[in-house]
Amino acid sequence: MGQTLTEKILDDHLVEGELETGEEIGIEIDQVLTQDTTGTLVWLQFEALGLDEVQTELAAQYCDHQTYQFDFKNTDDHRFLRSAAGTFGAYYSRPGNGICHNVHKENFAAPGKTLLGSDSHTPTPGGLGQLAIGSGGLDVAVAMGGGAYYIEMPEVVNVRLEGELPEWATAKDVILELLRRLSVKGGVGKVLEYTGPGVESLTVPERTTITNMGTELGATSSIFPTDEKTKDWLSRVSREDEYVELSPDEDAEYDDQITVDLSELEPLIAEPSMPDNVVPVREVAGTDVEQVMIGSCTNGAYEDILPAAKMVKGQTVDKKTEMIVAPGSKQASEMLAREGWTAEMMAAGVNFSEATCGACIGIGHVPASDSVSLRTFNRNFEGRSGIEDDNVYLCSPEVATAAAIEGEIVDPRDLDDVEAPGLEMGDKYGEGMGKDDPDIIAPDEAVDDGLVKGPNIGDVPLKDELDAELEGPALLKMEDNITTDHIIPATQDILMYRSNIPKLSEFTLSRVDEDFAQRALDSDGGFLVAGENYGQGSSREHAALCPMYLGVEGVLAQSFARIHRANLFNFGLIPLEIDEEDYENIEQGDDIEIVDDVAEAVRSGQEEFTVRVNDDWELTAELNASERERQILADGGKLSHTKKKAEDGSGAAPADD
Amino acid sequence: MGQTLTEKILDDHLVEGELETGEEIGIEIDQVLTQDTTGTLVWLQFEALGLDEVQTELAAQYCDHQTYQFDFKNTDDHRFLRSAAGTFGAYYSRPGNGICHNVHKENFAAPGKTLLGSDSHTPTPGGLGQLAIGSGGLDVAVAMGGGAYYIEMPEVVNVRLEGELPEWATAKDVILELLRRLSVKGGVGKVLEYTGPGVESLTVPERTTITNMGTELGATSSIFPTDEKTKDWLSRVSREDEYVELSPDEDAEYDDQITVDLSELEPLIAEPSMPDNVVPVREVAGTDVEQVMIGSCTNGAYEDILPAAKMVKGQTVDKKTEMIVAPGSKQASEMLAREGWTAEMMAAGVNFSEATCGACIGIGHVPASDSVSLRTFNRNFEGRSGIEDDNVYLCSPEVATAAAIEGEIVDPRDLDDVEAPGLEMGDKYGEGMGKDDPDIIAPDEAVDDGLVKGPNIGDVPLKDELDAELEGPALLKMEDNITTDHIIPATQDILMYRSNIPKLSEFTLSRVDEDFAQRALDSDGGFLVAGENYGQGSSREHAALCPMYLGVEGVLAQSFARIHRANLFNFGLIPLEIDEEDYENIEQGDDIEIVDDVAEAVRSGQEEFTVRVNDDWELTAELNASERERQILADGGKLSHTKKKAEDGSGAAPADD
Repeated sequence: MGQTLTEKILDDHLVEGELETGEEIGIEIDQVLTQDTTGTLVWLQFEALGLDEVQTELAAQYCDHQTYQFDFKNTDDHRFLRSAAGTFGAYYSRPGNGICHNVHKENFAAPGKTLLGSDSHTPTPGGLGQLAIGSGGLDVAVAMGGGAYYIEMPEVVNVRLEGELPEWATAKDVILELLRRLSVKGGVGKVLEYTGPGVESLTVPERTTITNMGTELGATSSIFPTDEKTKDWLSRVSREDEYVELSPDEDAEYDDQITVDLSELEPLIAEPSMPDNVVPVREVAGTDVEQVMIGSCTNGAYEDILPAAKMVKGQTVDKKTEMIVAPGSKQASEMLAREGWTAEMMAAGVNFSEATCGACIGIGHVPASDSVSLRTFNRNFEGRSGIEDDNVYLCSPEVATAAAIEGEIVDPRDLDDVEAPGLEMGDKYGEGMGKDDPDIIAPDEAVDDGLVKGPNIGDVPLKDELDAELEGPALLKMEDNITTDHIIPATQDILMYRSNIPKLSEFTLSRVDEDFAQRALDSDGGFLVAGENYGQGSSREHAALCPMYLGVEGVLAQSFARIHRANLFNFGLIPLEIDEEDYENIEQGDDIEIVDDVAEAVRSGQEEFTVRVNDDWELTAELNASERERQILADGGKLSHTKKKAEDGSGAAPADD
Repeated sequence: MGQTLTEKILDDHLVEGELETGEEIGIEIDQVLTQDTTGTLVWLQFEALGLDEVQTELAAQYCDHQTYQFDFKNTDDHRFLRSAAGTFGAYYSRPGNGICHNVHKENFAAPGKTLLGSDSHTPTPGGLGQLAIGSGGLDVAVAMGGGAYYIEMPEVVNVRLEGELPEWATAKDVILELLRRLSVKGGVGKVLEYTGPGVESLTVPERTTITNMGTELGATSSIFPTDEKTKDWLSRVSREDEYVELSPDEDAEYDDQITVDLSELEPLIAEPSMPDNVVPVREVAGTDVEQVMIGSCTNGAYEDILPAAKMVKGQTVDKKTEMIVAPGSKQASEMLAREGWTAEMMAAGVNFSEATCGACIGIGHVPASDSVSLRTFNRNFEGRSGIEDDNVYLCSPEVATAAAIEGEIVDPRDLDDVEAPGLEMGDKYGEGMGKDDPDIIAPDEAVDDGLVKGPNIGDVPLKDELDAELEGPALLKMEDNITTDHIIPATQDILMYRSNIPKLSEFTLSRVDEDFAQRALDSDGGFLVAGENYGQGSSREHAALCPMYLGVEGVLAQSFARIHRANLFNFGLIPLEIDEEDYENIEQGDDIEIVDDVAEAVRSGQEEFTVRVNDDWELTAELNASERERQILADGGKLSHTKKKAEDGSGAAPADD
């Protein structure tokens, strides 16, 4: 039987398990990336593990979320990250150099390699044949130490592309169409592998827009085969020698297949406040727009911004609409500036920002109250933009720019005097940049003497081994689709405490219930209760670490988002699945008791747990966990587990974990 | 006797008083400007005055401090400002279009005109012969309504310039030299008028660097004569028709004279943490530098950034130093981008920001703890950068750029392979911009239907006329030297409520007693009691407005700081001076009653007031006030006063106030 491309790459990197769907496998990681909101914890954990040198082929630390440095804590974080990268042997990309996914793609991403990153959009370079997976920071720290990365072997889904995109339809519309069809849960536990005759019509920047936003489907990863387009793109970033031809076997068997006829697509838009809330643009045409933002890791490449620049050249942005362009990388900014496009955009009324994630995570350019913002980003979860009750739409740069020119949502096919810009590749990426980029500090160029920790950079809390008895109140009952943005908001005023867990924990779930943190602390133990898809969204492990710090012992939910579920194990919180009826019957404040000897049951492989509620009725909850996850959970989390193993004599590098 | 240039312009605009040093004069205002941190209150006051149209020749509203919009309240403020400008007839400059002083200079500043602005660096266009003065927002609102602006006639000081600047010395070094000689108090109560043969060697951008930073000397204003250089510069911004020849009479008499020989200047730098802490750069050479910032209203022009761009072209920014360029205006950004300089700077490692005041007021790019930042800004007061114990140095773009290249402070004359860039004027400013700039909305292009007030934008409270009887408890007893920072803290988390007086008032005096605000509200009247120098520090009028909102009727203090005392009159709170013994005898909570018919006594010029304490003992308190101040106080503050005069038939425009 032939292999899928995903299986081929996994096979090449397999260190444990077998490639059978649902089975846990351990894979070797070639490259890791981390960024500034997750990176401080990654390095503090790397340090806490007693490790002293990066073991992967390549590790890269980016500074992209907090580039405005609104607080000295942000700047101190960046300085710490620079010192950690230099000390332990990683590349360091300076604040202002761009978003991790864009800069990694331009400089390091390579076909056939594995990449693990502490950011949920890590799968971006799947567009050039890299198998890239987002995870919690602790997994990244362990992988950097030479440890394997463990996941359940995902289903591999064949997304067969046919035809070619018509005028004004873009790669963004491909992924929006998939979101429309599959929903934000449609990719959970799956790798989406793109195949078919439509692939060759898409350039690498278009492919990476699609793979990037596969994250919003909940997919483990998304990947394209490599071909002449890949080779061509690599030559434009001066890395043609890294080209490897990769494709699935002709007789590869997939777990499922979806067909998308590119020629049938039209401009699409995700309405507030979920990325799968997708409709044709024409259905919402005429809606007044106060803000348009072009950028992000999804649509922040040179090839994404160039169409916007061509469209506004000689036009003016509507006077009641602000148009802000924040490129994904300085390399893109530099090319646009060098070719005169930046000047044209400015002259048309565009506010041109430094390269940053920024507004996509609610840092800067927060929309006005009761206003509509059109963004080329990947997420429009309510409140993520920095204001509650926001109205954020997601669309292509072309649709966003059309709205900026007209002051309202318009199907760009209805524009009178603006030609379809099409897609044009950058001739040669950042001539003066590449690996000698002044904004990237290579491991052998380290500029700090050891770790530099400002006053806000604390230690990582450790948890004790799991108790035999787990009992406490249902501290908070939540609905479906609670995101990590609900659990730990990513807004600037809160995330600046990312390296200071006691302080950061005060904000845990404050968007759901502002008294929660204090109640949890006072309670000395207890549980969270949630509906479906608990913990969707970003990979930030603070969403598990902070509840752990507050004394939360476990989460009872109808289902969990993949990365967050892994993070719960990693921080020693038991994730138990319950059915809908039991979910309905539990009330906030109920007393929850796990009847079994929990520590023993977890270690021994027990799957069903009896949960007693209010000493009155019982339900059965399920623990879905591999042998490895069970040991981690029982040891009090991955840090305690890894450390314990090292102390037990398995050596400093947790290589078999 | 001949006139100075200052006297000539004042004479042309005089509506009350005589040009005798120290006497109060009233002058007509031709232009006003306001920005986004002071502007919301200006327009709310304008609205409260019942005015419906700007009466000055020109009014301009800029959005420059909060352009990153990191809270929706900032964005709502901008939307309100746009609607207010459109409703009342002012120009509106969008966020991202640049700093008020730079954009005003490029678009509107005109020789011989008067300009009043609610920003302390308003004197900037003195460099092209405009008499420009900074003031509180209420004064700006009244001036916009057609009212005169009142000041004490300043001393006029002749700053005679001789010679020409040598290589690597710049206009920044001229003003740093004056700060070195005169100190930050050296210009108080004075207008600095530049004369002498050295004037003609300086371009307008150089002159405005000098007049801008005259504010750091404490000067009321700074001004240059006009000449061929002025005419030339106006033609480059397509406004040559606004040229007027202006110079002092040959026999003008000045109150004082200072001579600066430009040819003797060398690169200077202000050490932390005061702008007058000036030494030659060579004396601090070798100091490690972590951050370099080019921009601000002092050095953010095209002509300021171009030398930095020339210096870094082909060089790289040191890898341990961040170099950030934030242009003063988008027009400057556009020119730099169009000519390829932006690309060169980016390729050298510069992080290129949108046009903003930003970091200069601690918003963004806050230095790391325990690090050195070199900035081309105008102020380095401790903590202003956003971090306590900061180490901010002030210098020219050339000195800042040299440090970015070397990673440490270096006298640029000691650079080996970098040529002195000199000063080169922009050929033609922003071809596609000017008054048809897409980022400036003219009064006849208004885009909003009336005022748009987000949930955080409240009304300005008005106070009734002073009562005959004033009685209430001593709500709070304070010590000596209470600052306006004690009364209303200026931190971002509090000041974002600047347009919401009910909310902001909750923080009144919270640094002294966190229960004060609620107690004052509950009390429905009462007094503050303080020692010496009550209300020292910044000029912010919220420090009088918020106590007024809470119902405070007056302040009994041993003495008052000058500006805060004026603000108490403006907001209708009676400032009474008491002696030390009486201060000691009053206890917090005592009942205070002013025995006289207060309203009548204030109006009639009575200076001594009998105050009865606890119906038990009496003290004598003193009211020190001019006739004008008495009428303002009796009418319930300047807003009520101005409104009443208008309603009494003096016309909508409060012209004689």
